Amino acid sequence: MANIYSSKNIVLFLVASPILNLLFIINLYASGNWNLSWTFQAATEAEAVAAISCSGHGRAYLDGLVLDGKEPLCECNSCYAGSDCSVFIPGCSANADGGNPLFLEPFWVQHAASSALLIAGWHRMSYTFNDHTFISQELERLIRKLHAVVGNAVTDKRFIVFGAGSTQVISAAVHALSPDNASSPARVLASIPYYPLYKIQTELFESVNFKFQGDTSQWKNSSDTGANMIEFVTSPNNPDGQLNKAVLHGPHAKAIYDRAYYWPHFTPIPAPADEDVMIFTLSKLTGHAGSRFGWAVIKDESVFDRMTKHIGVNSIGVSRDSQLRALKLLKVVLEGEGREIFEFGHQTMKIRWENLVKGLSSSNRFSLQKIEPQYCTFFHEVRESSPAYAWLKCEREEEKDCYAVLKAANVIGHEGGVFGAEDRYLRLSMIGSQDDFDLLIDRLTKLVSVEAGARIM
Amino acid sequence: MANIYSSKNIVLFLVASPILNLLFIINLYASGNWNLSWTFQAATEAEAVAAISCSGHGRAYLDGLVLDGKEPLCECNSCYAGSDCSVFIPGCSANADGGNPLFLEPFWVQHAASSALLIAGWHRMSYTFNDHTFISQELERLIRKLHAVVGNAVTDKRFIVFGAGSTQVISAAVHALSPDNASSPARVLASIPYYPLYKIQTELFESVNFKFQGDTSQWKNSSDTGANMIEFVTSPNNPDGQLNKAVLHGPHAKAIYDRAYYWPHFTPIPAPADEDVMIFTLSKLTGHAGSRFGWAVIKDESVFDRMTKHIGVNSIGVSRDSQLRALKLLKVVLEGEGREIFEFGHQTMKIRWENLVKGLSSSNRFSLQKIEPQYCTFFHEVRESSPAYAWLKCEREEEKDCYAVLKAANVIGHEGGVFGAEDRYLRLSMIGSQDDFDLLIDRLTKLVSVEAGARIM
Repeated sequence: MANIYSSKNIVLFLVASPILNLLFIINLYASGNWNLSWTFQAATEAEAVAAISCSGHGRAYLDGLVLDGKEPLCECNSCYAGSDCSVFIPGCSANADGGNPLFLEPFWVQHAASSALLIAGWHRMSYTFNDHTFISQELERLIRKLHAVVGNAVTDKRFIVFGAGSTQVISAAVHALSPDNASSPARVLASIPYYPLYKIQTELFESVNFKFQGDTSQWKNSSDTGANMIEFVTSPNNPDGQLNKAVLHGPHAKAIYDRAYYWPHFTPIPAPADEDVMIFTLSKLTGHAGSRFGWAVIKDESVFDRMTKHIGVNSIGVSRDSQLRALKLLKVVLEGEGREIFEFGHQTMKIRWENLVKGLSSSNRFSLQKIEPQYCTFFHEVRESSPAYAWLKCEREEEKDCYAVLKAANVIGHEGGVFGAEDRYLRLSMIGSQDDFDLLIDRLTKLVSVEAGARIM
Repeated sequence: MANIYSSKNIVLFLVASPILNLLFIINLYASGNWNLSWTFQAATEAEAVAAISCSGHGRAYLDGLVLDGKEPLCECNSCYAGSDCSVFIPGCSANADGGNPLFLEPFWVQHAASSALLIAGWHRMSYTFNDHTFISQELERLIRKLHAVVGNAVTDKRFIVFGAGSTQVISAAVHALSPDNASSPARVLASIPYYPLYKIQTELFESVNFKFQGDTSQWKNSSDTGANMIEFVTSPNNPDGQLNKAVLHGPHAKAIYDRAYYWPHFTPIPAPADEDVMIFTLSKLTGHAGSRFGWAVIKDESVFDRMTKHIGVNSIGVSRDSQLRALKLLKVVLEGEGREIFEFGHQTMKIRWENLVKGLSSSNRFSLQKIEPQYCTFFHEVRESSPAYAWLKCEREEEKDCYAVLKAANVIGHEGGVFGAEDRYLRLSMIGSQDDFDLLIDRLTKLVSVEAGARIM
């Protein structure tokens, strides 16, 4: 419809006076409307939804519920309610559970124009790209460029495979590193505290070729050299942010390095990682957990082939829509050599960590992990870590259930036991929305002040 | 930038003469430019790429290779080449392999405006929707409405789970129907000819809980009633288009109905399917194989829970970008109660099938599957099947390798052996691009005319 009107304008334009011409030239150029036709409706819809006000405590989405038949509802951040999310729910628990990386959402709102994506109805309908792979060459090229710019991974002469988030890539890696028809299943191991998915996934899939066997410590000096071992190394570690290294070595030990958090938001980058299998995810880089896009950088071609086959058989590769979106987002990330997003991410995480440390400084009841500062080759200076999670310890002998202690203070964390550690530990997310973090600090400060009060009495 | 200019226009508009006002009102209303701001750049990019001419034998994509630093290259249909895909490659093989559903691409080009989607940079960054699921309620609602409109599946009081294409849903279903800690792994079975993925996937994942054991026939009258059996029933069947039913019954037999092709494009719809586990995919409904979106309709809550957990642990649900795109596409599908897309799809497939039957009618060397016409409750009349694939049989005693026979005639099909059948059978795809199909018919007609010539001599 829009372009029909435009042609009308052109006609008017021809018969009009010089001043009229000038005004139309300005207007047509400005609106770009002579080349906007079939995209106009989608663009208008998106702007209409973005214009719905949710008081800064929520958001309306294009696929949100439409109850009144008019426009999508506001979806409120936790602890906010009302049709425009303006009502704070008193006594609501601070949500520091989970790993939703919403701390980056404001960055994307600030970069609305460059990060918007318009997908045509006929975009990439085929199962494969023109080169018969499931992988966008342009996206792969951009990922290699990103690692070079950030300096966090070696990708020259390495293979890259995509998956539906690091989650799917992880299962493909375990499969690829587990020999078929071995005398016994490969032992899947991780050092406590470890990211629970490794255990959950390996146990749920119950393969004849691999079996989760818990902590690495019991196998460090194992004389049983015959059995294959697959060690998960999360670096920086989830939950405690340490730059871990593999502890198992020898001919039968293989490592999967989960590098999800190895970005300047969370940690100094001492040097480019160069392990045999390294896994990354868009989720902790751009904050788009919902897009389900991750990748692995792999040295060995046969491992790459086995992972590619596994992801092919699992889901016929990764959604082309997600790949296109990842491409668009990474183009924004790479603007100005990544300075903007990593400055934003690091600054946000640094301030949050400093606030948390300050809030707990006077406490003898709670302690936090210590992470050594290091030289960051991206920022070219020594930097403190600004971890994605706080690994809180309840120090009082009798307080063995740290989850319960914080729950009583209206803070929901993630139990240490889930990470293979004692329940005296608790993981608190630092990467959520600003609303979540502000409430967390507020609750923790109250908790610590009670402790101080108790000491004074 | 665009909106800054617009505000200029408003100023001019106020000081201008009445006729000028009128013209601006038309123009501004037409361009809608006073409410287009941050989406303008993405919309312009998409239209620029769509405007690249590839001679109707290819397409340029937003994420296509950009070699000259200017615009993405044309990606040509098989057998076409050149910077604008205008060059036909003589002697090139007709591609009737694979299952790319490009026959629907022209429909989406015709519906460019209603099927275009603009995704904001901050769209759905979280792992979960506001209800803590991985599933868009709006999309689920539309899927239920679609099944009701088409009449191809009962969804009342049924659960719906999403996956990355039917491929991921299938593995979740096999997991969900395989009891844990059973004395022996569940037998995964299918009736020959069957869709090869069932075997490939079950064997690659090598679970302790299930094992692929081939054709159902050997188990039909099995006295061994103790072992659990999971039967794949593909209806309409891939490769031969028959509306199959389960052949295994009894307390230990469970069926997974793959309903990927149960749409009016391919088959009459005699009645709504009402099996315990039914699997569908966007791929064969709208043609968007690349979006990797499928779903299952499930009766039993515990099966639904196990499938949901499996897909959660496998990939933390389905890309929100794919879900949003599926929502947009299904809205177009549902316009006018689905008449338009199913008329288009059925008409295209019907004409293709008639051309194929005509092309082979004079042949004694090749035969096609016969499918009984049935009353279609969607079109309200008796309809012939218009199958997605031709299941070709080489009738000559000595021609046991039908793939080789067709390859010699420059036609690439999919060997019968891959479907568990004799290699005297060959699957030919009818759902590819019009270029692929036209070339297929051309090559088959030549092949048959040689046969006729031989008979005359």
